[in-house]
Amino acid sequence: MTVRIAVAGASGYAGGELLRLLLGHPDVEIGAVTAGGNAGSALGEHQPHLLPLSGRVLQETTPDVLGGHDVVFLALPHGRSAEIAGQLGEDVVVIDCGADFRLVDPEAWTRYYGSPHAGTWPYGMPELPGAREPLVGARRIAVPGCYPTAASLALAPALAAGIVDHDVTVVAVSGTSGAGRAAKTTLLGSEVMGSLSAYGVGGTHRHTPEIRQNLTAAAGAPVTVSFTPVLAPLPRGILATCSARTSATGPQARAVYEQAYADEPFVHLLPAGRFPTTGAVLGSNALQLQVAVDADAQRLVVVAAVDNLTKGTAGAAVQCMNLALGLPETAGLSTIGVAP
Amino acid sequence: MTVRIAVAGASGYAGGELLRLLLGHPDVEIGAVTAGGNAGSALGEHQPHLLPLSGRVLQETTPDVLGGHDVVFLALPHGRSAEIAGQLGEDVVVIDCGADFRLVDPEAWTRYYGSPHAGTWPYGMPELPGAREPLVGARRIAVPGCYPTAASLALAPALAAGIVDHDVTVVAVSGTSGAGRAAKTTLLGSEVMGSLSAYGVGGTHRHTPEIRQNLTAAAGAPVTVSFTPVLAPLPRGILATCSARTSATGPQARAVYEQAYADEPFVHLLPAGRFPTTGAVLGSNALQLQVAVDADAQRLVVVAAVDNLTKGTAGAAVQCMNLALGLPETAGLSTIGVAP
Amino acid sequence: MTVRIAVAGASGYAGGELLRLLLGHPDVEIGAVTAGGNAGSALGEHQPHLLPLSGRVLQETTPDVLGGHDVVFLALPHGRSAEIAGQLGEDVVVIDCGADFRLVDPEAWTRYYGSPHAGTWPYGMPELPGAREPLVGARRIAVPGCYPTAASLALAPALAAGIVDHDVTVVAVSGTSGAGRAAKTTLLGSEVMGSLSAYGVGGTHRHTPEIRQNLTAAAGAPVTVSFTPVLAPLPRGILATCSARTSATGPQARAVYEQAYADEPFVHLLPAGRFPTTGAVLGSNALQLQVAVDADAQRLVVVAAVDNLTKGTAGAAVQCMNLALGLPETAGLSTIGVAP
Amino acid sequence: MTVRIAVAGASGYAGGELLRLLLGHPDVEIGAVTAGGNAGSALGEHQPHLLPLSGRVLQETTPDVLGGHDVVFLALPHGRSAEIAGQLGEDVVVIDCGADFRLVDPEAWTRYYGSPHAGTWPYGMPELPGAREPLVGARRIAVPGCYPTAASLALAPALAAGIVDHDVTVVAVSGTSGAGRAAKTTLLGSEVMGSLSAYGVGGTHRHTPEIRQNLTAAAGAPVTVSFTPVLAPLPRGILATCSARTSATGPQARAVYEQAYADEPFVHLLPAGRFPTTGAVLGSNALQLQVAVDADAQRLVVVAAVDNLTKGTAGAAVQCMNLALGLPETAGLSTIGVAP
Repeated sequence: MTVRIAVAGASGYAGGELLRLLLGHPDVEIGAVTAGGNAGSALGEHQPHLLPLSGRVLQETTPDVLGGHDVVFLALPHGRSAEIAGQLGEDVVVIDCGADFRLVDPEAWTRYYGSPHAGTWPYGMPELPGAREPLVGARRIAVPGCYPTAASLALAPALAAGIVDHDVTVVAVSGTSGAGRAAKTTLLGSEVMGSLSAYGVGGTHRHTPEIRQNLTAAAGAPVTVSFTPVLAPLPRGILATCSARTSATGPQARAVYEQAYADEPFVHLLPAGRFPTTGAVLGSNALQLQVAVDADAQRLVVVAAVDNLTKGTAGAAVQCMNLALGLPETAGLSTIGVAP
Repeated sequence: MTVRIAVAGASGYAGGELLRLLLGHPDVEIGAVTAGGNAGSALGEHQPHLLPLSGRVLQETTPDVLGGHDVVFLALPHGRSAEIAGQLGEDVVVIDCGADFRLVDPEAWTRYYGSPHAGTWPYGMPELPGAREPLVGARRIAVPGCYPTAASLALAPALAAGIVDHDVTVVAVSGTSGAGRAAKTTLLGSEVMGSLSAYGVGGTHRHTPEIRQNLTAAAGAPVTVSFTPVLAPLPRGILATCSARTSATGPQARAVYEQAYADEPFVHLLPAGRFPTTGAVLGSNALQLQVAVDADAQRLVVVAAVDNLTKGTAGAAVQCMNLALGLPETAGLSTIGVAP
Repeated sequence: MTVRIAVAGASGYAGGELLRLLLGHPDVEIGAVTAGGNAGSALGEHQPHLLPLSGRVLQETTPDVLGGHDVVFLALPHGRSAEIAGQLGEDVVVIDCGADFRLVDPEAWTRYYGSPHAGTWPYGMPELPGAREPLVGARRIAVPGCYPTAASLALAPALAAGIVDHDVTVVAVSGTSGAGRAAKTTLLGSEVMGSLSAYGVGGTHRHTPEIRQNLTAAAGAPVTVSFTPVLAPLPRGILATCSARTSATGPQARAVYEQAYADEPFVHLLPAGRFPTTGAVLGSNALQLQVAVDADAQRLVVVAAVDNLTKGTAGAAVQCMNLALGLPETAGLSTIGVAP
Repeated sequence: MTVRIAVAGASGYAGGELLRLLLGHPDVEIGAVTAGGNAGSALGEHQPHLLPLSGRVLQETTPDVLGGHDVVFLALPHGRSAEIAGQLGEDVVVIDCGADFRLVDPEAWTRYYGSPHAGTWPYGMPELPGAREPLVGARRIAVPGCYPTAASLALAPALAAGIVDHDVTVVAVSGTSGAGRAAKTTLLGSEVMGSLSAYGVGGTHRHTPEIRQNLTAAAGAPVTVSFTPVLAPLPRGILATCSARTSATGPQARAVYEQAYADEPFVHLLPAGRFPTTGAVLGSNALQLQVAVDADAQRLVVVAAVDNLTKGTAGAAVQCMNLALGLPETAGLSTIGVAP
């Protein structure tokens, strides 16, 4: 079986990463690649690293162009997916890397995104409790956000096991590609190199309700989340430091995580004494984590490293496609990073 | 008055920063510069940025060489200061950039540093409540650690004002110079560039008891501290994200910080809506911070940016010297960063 | 004497560096700070590192606002200086950081910049042969470009001494701030971090005719220049590698440079065996260089390191102001870098 | 056919990259992984990005351990390969990533490496004229150095076609991994981030004779080479700017390169107007290049971008293995980079 796919938003970072992964997928044939303002130009002008596709011309992002593929990946600005998806056949697998269909609560959507809620699709984080099955055979999938991927996989096992309070803090440091490819002064290399900056301080980042939704589901009861993102000078990678009060011991906590992820191909609890680095997961679909209990502070601390563009976006999207189509979940994906 | 100073450990990062600042101090004359293994070589081989001193030859770090100066700055590996200081006259101002004399509690010292406690000197963070006066005229001063500088100044006002719980979390991202200049594989440029890594997860970092000591003093009651350091790819800078549960409102919290730092020359609360960046304090003795209250999570979040080598080490040392000698506290120090 | 200055283009990188240096100048009072699109906003929003000026409001860049100052620094996009300068009194010292008045040859200007030639002002690189005197008392000065600063000071002594052929190659690696603060996709942190890129390959960069002009003047005969700029992932710094065929020996070449720069406060030939790094000149007005003769290739190789924003732009501008006003040439300037 | 391979020096950067590529090679099974001082520890401590091998224990680098494999890759310090290789069977394919067997001229070896010449093996750069055939079926192969890869492929076509003088300049900017993983102060992240530095100025870098050898072979007559390496703050990547006097036009030069590399899978001449970036070849075995003629300077300028660890070392080694064993030359290798 060869799956014919299209990528909308192919000149951006998420679109580029989707194509990088899909070029290496054994069952995929790459069909249309589309863009907004960059339509009409060669893909090679925007994604010079994708040599086999460098001569491809970006088409307009329209239902006509996207139709006729088995799978359509949407890597569009927030708020643009609903219209496109509505015009694609119900038998087409539509995988949305944007936020539009992630949240269950319409009020949370409107509060953080300021527009009407488009709906809710199956959520593409199969490693959460009970989350894999709805993805099998799904025709519409919402790919999780990058920060929620790191934070949710770091904390869900402890919350599900009942070993921590329902009041968590997440400080996640990210590379700049998570902010997208739009030309903004604050994202210039001159600004970000040699500097660290906080933003969205006080729970205002749009990924906050998504993290809360995932952790509340895992806990089976409301969880409060204090989330602070930090921007650091590297292109890719998220390192999330997550904590919550616990009365568990270190070995108890470790056992919870060992059990939770024993069979997961992409989530790796590191041996005791090693700490995650984003460099080790660069370009890989793996999430590496470590857990510790601070007995003085009575807190569980979990640190998770993930590539925001791979497991944090495009890799998760491919993983979801595999599940949707009944392919091996790991097809076209790797746990091997590019280091140093 | 010209103050004649010596710097022990002049081939390291803290030593280099001390000399950079002292070269610009209007009342200082630079005397001996000493080193351990690098003694005998020219300073210019190690600190090529200090052109006016490039021909100076590094001497051995001995009491003989260091004696005869008004002020001796020690930038030595931990555990080395006590012996040297004990052989310097009581009238010499000795300012220790190491950890040896920071902690009050001998047990905390031994637990984290594994050696006998050398004693406790006046603590060189004048912006903490009641901390300035003991520094005036002091002849022995312990310069604070870089992480404790950011975390303590970020949280002390809220604890002193009683608007937060006594259970705080600190996640502080740091550049690599904080780890010193010793050649270690994990600190190679190839390892740290393009990567974020956690270390000391679970409260094991040696700065933990120092933060706890400062915050407990500010609160007037025991404070538990969950501290996680993160290493990021930049040479200088610490961005600390600190939080604690609060029932205060944003404006109440802001008022506490405005009042606490109204007269401080080096601690700046940013206008609402702006967030600290370490780039803005590079090479400067300023600490920039912002406060927010997350009403959903009921947490106060304070973000502080500081240059670990300047306000985090060498700048604080110069500030302490100024206080000790009765010079203007800001002499030779600047709140202007080098950006971009 | 207090010199009252204005900076036009104060929200950009060159403008910010001018203000950083001028804040530390003992004879300067900072008057108007102006901008284009950012007029009306606080300087602190754009230059958060300039804490003492953070409350200043950016004014419009008009002759009315700029008039009434002793010195006006122009840090404007190319082609904008002539109009402004023409409306400022002849007694006002106008120092242009743009390219408009650097070139002597109108055809070279038009070929590389595509607009009519505005004229030629005294050229602000006092270290070139015969170039200092015209700056003393000047009321209009053209500040050199950053690449020409590195390349010209690297090669002029050898050409003036007649020890190299008149056919030179320059490959200069630069940080990103040289490209300015305009939001461009290619200058995003995500693009430049972790990557090196060439541009202007084949002599098309606009600094080419300026280098040629300087070297031809130094040689007293036409010099051909092959110039290739390379962009590297750092905010500041230019490292230029320059070479030309020679029959001189290493010691002969070294003697030429020792003599040429013996009395220069800002140009430093390093001791044999040390190589320049841009880190050592960060934020400093120094240029560090090293010379070598490759006997196999019969080429003189000169490597020069400079901070493109300091000696490469704003520092040179302040140096020129000092000369124009009869102040000490080094006032407000330093040869001390901020490292690491 | 499954090829059983061993990697000696598996805890270094070249060894890690070899394993990364070989893990994805369809015909390879990974046997022994060995190290020097790190023998006895888990591979995961040193190469945390190679998750599938993280539990492997590093063995000692001995003939006994390495024997019994079809292919042995040596990624050892210079001067160590000869002894090991001499004890491996003649039927074993030995691919040396070190310099020991690259040079034909014993005097050049001794002059630059200071030890007796070990010999000369077939040189693993199949894209050079006449270089592919000797690799087919070879049992000993010397993998080229990283700088020589960029410089030779950039200049050989022009020299072979006789369109340039036999006097070339090469300035190549490199990431830090090319310097290896040994802990050296000058390679610390704090030193290299935010800084550019030259080294080996004046033709003293050990890769100089290798470049000269390749270009002399291509030209069929002696070529003089002025080579200057520059260190830049990124882990991987070499951008080489190469030039030589020419009387050819731009289109003529372009035609030479189009023809030379028309059938090469890994060497890509970019369309006119695009310039190479190392980001686009990160982790890929592709070399991207662009050519231009500077009519004013009468110079051909060629810029080449390559990943020093992939096409510059480990990728070339795998490509050589493929040729030696009669596998498809591109097996296990990709022209797709990881960007941004």
